[in-house]
Amino acid sequence: MYGRMVVILERKEFLELLNERIYFLDGAYGTEFFKLGFKEVIETLNVTNSEMVYALQKAYVDAGVDFLLTNTFSANRLKLSSLKVKYNLKDINYNAVKIAKKARKDKKVYILGDISSTGYLISPLGELTFDEAYEVFKEQGEILLNSGIDGFILETMSDLKELKAAILALRDLSKDVPIIVQMTFDEDGVAVTGTSVEIFSTLMNDLDVDVVGINCTLEPEKLLPVFKQLSNYSRKPISVEPNAGKPKLLRDGSIVYNTSPEKFALYMEDFVEFGANIVGGCCGTSPEHIRLMVEFLKEKKPKKREIVKEEFVSSRTKLKKMKPFLIIGERINAAGKKKFQQKIRERNYNKIVELAILQEKEGAHVLDLNLGIEKLLDKTHFSQVVNTLDKISSLPLSLDIQEFEFMEMALKEYVGRPIINSSTAKRENLDKAIYLLKRYGGILILLTMKDKIPESAKERFDIALEAIRYLEKHDIEKERVIVDPLVLPLGAKKDPAVTIKTIELLSKEGINTSIGLSNLSFGMPNREALNSSFLALCIDKGLTAAILNTSEKCTMNAVFGSLTLKGVDFEKKEIIRNEPM
Amino acid sequence: MYGRMVVILERKEFLELLNERIYFLDGAYGTEFFKLGFKEVIETLNVTNSEMVYALQKAYVDAGVDFLLTNTFSANRLKLSSLKVKYNLKDINYNAVKIAKKARKDKKVYILGDISSTGYLISPLGELTFDEAYEVFKEQGEILLNSGIDGFILETMSDLKELKAAILALRDLSKDVPIIVQMTFDEDGVAVTGTSVEIFSTLMNDLDVDVVGINCTLEPEKLLPVFKQLSNYSRKPISVEPNAGKPKLLRDGSIVYNTSPEKFALYMEDFVEFGANIVGGCCGTSPEHIRLMVEFLKEKKPKKREIVKEEFVSSRTKLKKMKPFLIIGERINAAGKKKFQQKIRERNYNKIVELAILQEKEGAHVLDLNLGIEKLLDKTHFSQVVNTLDKISSLPLSLDIQEFEFMEMALKEYVGRPIINSSTAKRENLDKAIYLLKRYGGILILLTMKDKIPESAKERFDIALEAIRYLEKHDIEKERVIVDPLVLPLGAKKDPAVTIKTIELLSKEGINTSIGLSNLSFGMPNREALNSSFLALCIDKGLTAAILNTSEKCTMNAVFGSLTLKGVDFEKKEIIRNEPM
Ligand SMILES: [Zn+2]
Ligand SMILES: [Zn+2]
Ligand SMILES: [Zn+2]
Repeated sequence: MYGRMVVILERKEFLELLNERIYFLDGAYGTEFFKLGFKEVIETLNVTNSEMVYALQKAYVDAGVDFLLTNTFSANRLKLSSLKVKYNLKDINYNAVKIAKKARKDKKVYILGDISSTGYLISPLGELTFDEAYEVFKEQGEILLNSGIDGFILETMSDLKELKAAILALRDLSKDVPIIVQMTFDEDGVAVTGTSVEIFSTLMNDLDVDVVGINCTLEPEKLLPVFKQLSNYSRKPISVEPNAGKPKLLRDGSIVYNTSPEKFALYMEDFVEFGANIVGGCCGTSPEHIRLMVEFLKEKKPKKREIVKEEFVSSRTKLKKMKPFLIIGERINAAGKKKFQQKIRERNYNKIVELAILQEKEGAHVLDLNLGIEKLLDKTHFSQVVNTLDKISSLPLSLDIQEFEFMEMALKEYVGRPIINSSTAKRENLDKAIYLLKRYGGILILLTMKDKIPESAKERFDIALEAIRYLEKHDIEKERVIVDPLVLPLGAKKDPAVTIKTIELLSKEGINTSIGLSNLSFGMPNREALNSSFLALCIDKGLTAAILNTSEKCTMNAVFGSLTLKGVDFEKKEIIRNEPM
Repeated sequence: MYGRMVVILERKEFLELLNERIYFLDGAYGTEFFKLGFKEVIETLNVTNSEMVYALQKAYVDAGVDFLLTNTFSANRLKLSSLKVKYNLKDINYNAVKIAKKARKDKKVYILGDISSTGYLISPLGELTFDEAYEVFKEQGEILLNSGIDGFILETMSDLKELKAAILALRDLSKDVPIIVQMTFDEDGVAVTGTSVEIFSTLMNDLDVDVVGINCTLEPEKLLPVFKQLSNYSRKPISVEPNAGKPKLLRDGSIVYNTSPEKFALYMEDFVEFGANIVGGCCGTSPEHIRLMVEFLKEKKPKKREIVKEEFVSSRTKLKKMKPFLIIGERINAAGKKKFQQKIRERNYNKIVELAILQEKEGAHVLDLNLGIEKLLDKTHFSQVVNTLDKISSLPLSLDIQEFEFMEMALKEYVGRPIINSSTAKRENLDKAIYLLKRYGGILILLTMKDKIPESAKERFDIALEAIRYLEKHDIEKERVIVDPLVLPLGAKKDPAVTIKTIELLSKEGINTSIGLSNLSFGMPNREALNSSFLALCIDKGLTAAILNTSEKCTMNAVFGSLTLKGVDFEKKEIIRNEPM
């Protein structure tokens, strides 16, 4: 019906623009139409009263915005259906773009296809599947794109998983379209789904989006500290659209927002001070709010931000710094455990949940997930386990999965920034890893081997460096790689000094390292003694992570003790946001 | 009464002689006189019937012996008194030498003043004090020496502590007189007091005696395996005098020994094969036994022995190899513990005994003994504690004592080869340590400091090397030194890497090292974690001992784990003789 159109705004050009000055989004639609007495689903106006939409958008264009949002916030199949809108999805979206284009006229204003939530919770929080959500977003996105928008804005999202489905859908439509993504948070900096602004920011750093922002829910003064965290953690340009003050319930049951345009404009300067690249208004803001804001801030240049350099792993609700040391609990591992394996096969995940809770109590920062012999399983086992752990708000996961198809399934369902465990340094494996890292985000465990495990530390080191250079060439920074220098069983007469030497060489290059510690003592007596002693030597030489048995008190002591000996303060709170800000 | 005479046999000359050929001691006296019908105390014959003694000794001279023993085996004040001998002690001893000289006539035969036990058990086994025993031996020894003997033989001793008293008494009489010391063992290689032949041999290596041997109790075939152990462990020339076969009870109540002279001579060749330098006969041997032995073995040269190179510490009943690692339990330490200190002051040593037993169970090899503030104590506290621990057959001790007088008291009472903890590298302290090491035997913990603790590893290393060279110049081998490179509290912002570096430097020179591990974590939280991690790093760099808290499971694990990582088999039985051979 609608021919595919060339995107006017190139992503590169778009990002360059953002360096020059502050850019402006428009203000509210819903509250403006409400003022005019319209109390229905506003997207229907695109079909029933395009003049009314045009008038508001024209006012925003006159107010001086750079970006005009299409009136399509709820215009996805599921939302329209739950709102009982009978108008055609395509018409609503196509008309919205058409109206915006008319409003823009000959001004240099970019039109962003506006998309928000389906209104359904995605599994495991609700019944909607990831793939269903993906298709809903793809459907709306395709119409908008083909109608001639310049970019997308995903806004007022509160579920990181739904956001991820939307991002993947939109990006799959086009590699070239700019995408702005905005979530909404309560004043503690946490979305209703439990995801903190830091978790959001650090995952968005990995994903293929262009601008990351926050909108709605909070008035400027409450949003500012939350936005400050976005400003600290986001490595991408940042955007913000506060509400116009606190909502007030009127006698007629409607809600108004009471921050005046002048006050709003003044507040918005604070966001610019904190590094905002794009500012606009959400609920309660009017063309007058936007006009004053533009007038007040149009000469401003974006601030240079001090961005947190540390790397993090996260689950939906828990964020963990990778430095100084990541304790990855090894105990969700069915390999060689018949009963455990059988339970997983029968989709009984009680033991997994039990081990997740136990390992967190024992001090794990991340949980390694190894479901054992994968031939016995299908990909739904992986989605189910990931969702089961998401439901109990588990620690971040290290997805220890062999089969590519299973790994991708787990990554798709995973909420947060996981560890992808692992890839060898073979080109074909690295290419797969690059695909996964770019599409889903995460940290890669890279094995220092191709087909065989090299005998010497120098060879292992060289293999790691070569692979890291290849990853860097494909835009995967070395900070997203943890090299596993390979621990072999002492019982097999393998020299553990080779592993330690490899760690030392890698550490001198500032490369993160992790070992599968327990492999050392496989089949030996007093494993804890061997594991803890070896770990102390490895940490002394710079090891930054280990997959280990958190029930071994001495091994846990070796982490604390060895780091303290190096002058590292390891007692401080490591999970930085599972409590309110 | 008797003028002091010049010793004919120089020690150096004596030891040189032993390189040339096998030397011969005489045979039995008691059983020979018994055959002639004499059933009284044989030493009285020196006064009442010198002809009878002369005749036997003449027969031994004619049989070809190199050494004639004076007929003074029981001729010490206490033994004679308990045997109700009314003759004068001096006359018995003086006459014995006179008779032997007459028997020797112009032959090149050396006369050894024969001394054996007082017949009383020394404390803590009996009531006799160390000093009383010392005086008894000194009294007899002085008479013998002044009567013109060429050397001493201490024989048939069964209490290592009594032997030590005798050795010190005789050596205090003359620095120049040769001393042969012989203990007697059951066929399991352990004396009735619980001391093994290995414990005896390794302590005698330190003490100022010339030849170390075994005599009596066993017939040649039973004595041979015990003697083999002496041959393995003694770094001094070795001697042996078996009995002439198994004793047989006759109808008249007397005992005879039934190995024929021919058979005896043949057996004695086995002892020569095992490295004996001096051979002779004990109970049941006659001049004919000795004559045939001499005839059979006179052309034999002493065998070169393979002597165990390892170093040991010991208590009366327990021997512990110093390598690969010595776990020294720190918990008998009253410093900073008011109640414990008070109990010690009140001579209530229950807690010490309890901690000794506990630490042995926890895996300690050695017990450090630190009685706290020494000003509150007198030297009898030290002798009592050492005797209390001896009585319960404790592990070897590390005598952690500041006051020189208290240290010497403890060393005098101690049975075995202890650790002397400690000396700084100051010349005056080293001189005191040399005196103690030579007089009492033992291993020295040498601190890498003089007045102040040097900041750098190189300085600590240099101080240790200089001190070791000084000790070596005074005949203390570096194997008898354990260097403590000094661990300072982390809390005092001291760099633990200096200690580790010092260990590494010392280890490369083959020098033993030990640390006071717990000092590291003084005043810190989770001490076990710090201690165990640090210990792993130290052992990796070559640490060979540590004074540590054996109740810390992780610290004990670090010892086992770190050594296993270095390929050291630490599981094998470490206390090599507290069970029968
Ligand atoms: Zn809003
Ligand atoms: Zn005898
Ligand atoms: Zn004898």
